[in-house]
Amino acid sequence: MPKLLFVAAEPKPERWTDAIRQACPEVEVIVWKDDGQVHDADYAIVWRPPPALFAREHKLKALFNLGAGVDGLLGLDKLPAELPIIRLEDAGMSVQMAEFVIHQVVEQTRDMAVYRAQQRQGLWRIQRPITRTEWPIGVLGMGRIGARVANALAALDYAVSAWVRTPRPGNPLPVFVGKAGLRDMLARTRIVVNTLPLTDETRDIMDYDFFSALLPGAIVINVGRGEHLVDDDLLRAIAEGKVHSATLDVFREEPLPPQHPFWQSPNITITPHVSARTLREETIAQIVTKMRALEAGEPVTGLVNPSRGY
Amino acid sequence: MPKLLFVAAEPKPERWTDAIRQACPEVEVIVWKDDGQVHDADYAIVWRPPPALFAREHKLKALFNLGAGVDGLLGLDKLPAELPIIRLEDAGMSVQMAEFVIHQVVEQTRDMAVYRAQQRQGLWRIQRPITRTEWPIGVLGMGRIGARVANALAALDYAVSAWVRTPRPGNPLPVFVGKAGLRDMLARTRIVVNTLPLTDETRDIMDYDFFSALLPGAIVINVGRGEHLVDDDLLRAIAEGKVHSATLDVFREEPLPPQHPFWQSPNITITPHVSARTLREETIAQIVTKMRALEAGEPVTGLVNPSRGY
Repeated sequence: MPKLLFVAAEPKPERWTDAIRQACPEVEVIVWKDDGQVHDADYAIVWRPPPALFAREHKLKALFNLGAGVDGLLGLDKLPAELPIIRLEDAGMSVQMAEFVIHQVVEQTRDMAVYRAQQRQGLWRIQRPITRTEWPIGVLGMGRIGARVANALAALDYAVSAWVRTPRPGNPLPVFVGKAGLRDMLARTRIVVNTLPLTDETRDIMDYDFFSALLPGAIVINVGRGEHLVDDDLLRAIAEGKVHSATLDVFREEPLPPQHPFWQSPNITITPHVSARTLREETIAQIVTKMRALEAGEPVTGLVNPSRGY
Repeated sequence: MPKLLFVAAEPKPERWTDAIRQACPEVEVIVWKDDGQVHDADYAIVWRPPPALFAREHKLKALFNLGAGVDGLLGLDKLPAELPIIRLEDAGMSVQMAEFVIHQVVEQTRDMAVYRAQQRQGLWRIQRPITRTEWPIGVLGMGRIGARVANALAALDYAVSAWVRTPRPGNPLPVFVGKAGLRDMLARTRIVVNTLPLTDETRDIMDYDFFSALLPGAIVINVGRGEHLVDDDLLRAIAEGKVHSATLDVFREEPLPPQHPFWQSPNITITPHVSARTLREETIAQIVTKMRALEAGEPVTGLVNPSRGY
């Protein structure tokens, strides 16, 4: 019977472990405790695990990361270099991000905040007409999440371009590749949506030069990672009108510290990392399917390439 | 040379007429004035025209309505019974309605107003998880607008049902038909979106019984016509918790009168009939194409059936 460790700071881990046992009765599910006990587990489901995990468990055959981004895991001290890491693929997250981004695009381009303010004043006044053509969109990253976001926006007749590290055949959207391609895409983009994984290549990518390359009065939507964005550069780009407004769901430090200037900026919308949340049912189904495949010696998708960073 | 009258209370009618002349140099375009002059026009582009139009112009071969809904036109005194009326089909409106409805669905189901309030207080707190399965959607009407709204929501993995007068083959969504079907659909609907045309059959359709048939704590989105909804019944359904909240873009009287209780209801979101706006370029292209078809004796789509009401 394979042993599975659950290693995530969840207030009620039994919500997960009970469901895993039900979905996969053939495994022994153990909640990780920092009590020094060695379980010789075969697999671990992890979210920001303590380094002690790797000091103690030496029989691990694979890690399942409870999220799409593995930037918090790859940097960990004592993570065995050869240990396969499998990240969550979609599991209900991409559709949440797609509707979150659509909400923010409509919110910003169709004056929804103005209409709410007008209602409080009992005011009936029609704002500027909808001019979809004035809002070309650029999506950074075309993984499962980026592709779903981009396609959902394209289905609403927005002109959508995508920026990728390596071109993928079969995508109908205009795709820009590499550093030179980024500059070209930004020059025709007025709404930029970041869905990139965090790697050494993408860290700090949204800096002052990036914002300056966008069409003027741009909208920035960051649902990737806080470390993609240089905070002071965004504030400067807003002050100079290069960026009109920004919606930020992720931050360098979370929770965003109380004294951070983003909180009080009228042009910045802050959400507490909720653009896509891990859905337990979908997540467990995906992990159980992959664990059974690994036990049967079959290949699985979502295997992280540590040198690539995702 | 065919003569075309432009009969709409536009502050700058030349924005329309100049563009029509450019798109269609073979017609003589005349802006209607209430000065008694008879032009013997062949066609008229109308939005809520004065009855004097029909008293004076007797050579009209067809009317082009500057909107999808013809309820304001069919009731007009002196409208010749045999005069063909062609309504606007889509012309950029359906995609606007689709994104407007998605915005409101996300706004209501994902606590976006709570997150905005939290930001003003510098508060980082994650609200209830996203539970798409708790929000089955019912769309009333499957014309061009309803179908686009329904399909856009279904593409975001919502369970969408549709209610129609007559069943249409080829639509993949579950479809409910007629009075009995309406009750069945409402019983499985928690978000109801109205895109119906206003006819004698659909007037006052959203009444207390209608709201009571929905799943409890429902969300009502009205982008059809104000006359579809019984105002007092909505307020009662909200007070009783049958309806949690409503987004209303259309009203029995527009602008909504200042003393109307909707303005100050915290559970009602009011927008001033902006969920879809007529886009001049698309509209003119559509009308010109159809006018040329009529001149050539060819059939056109969008012909109104007065006995059906749309």
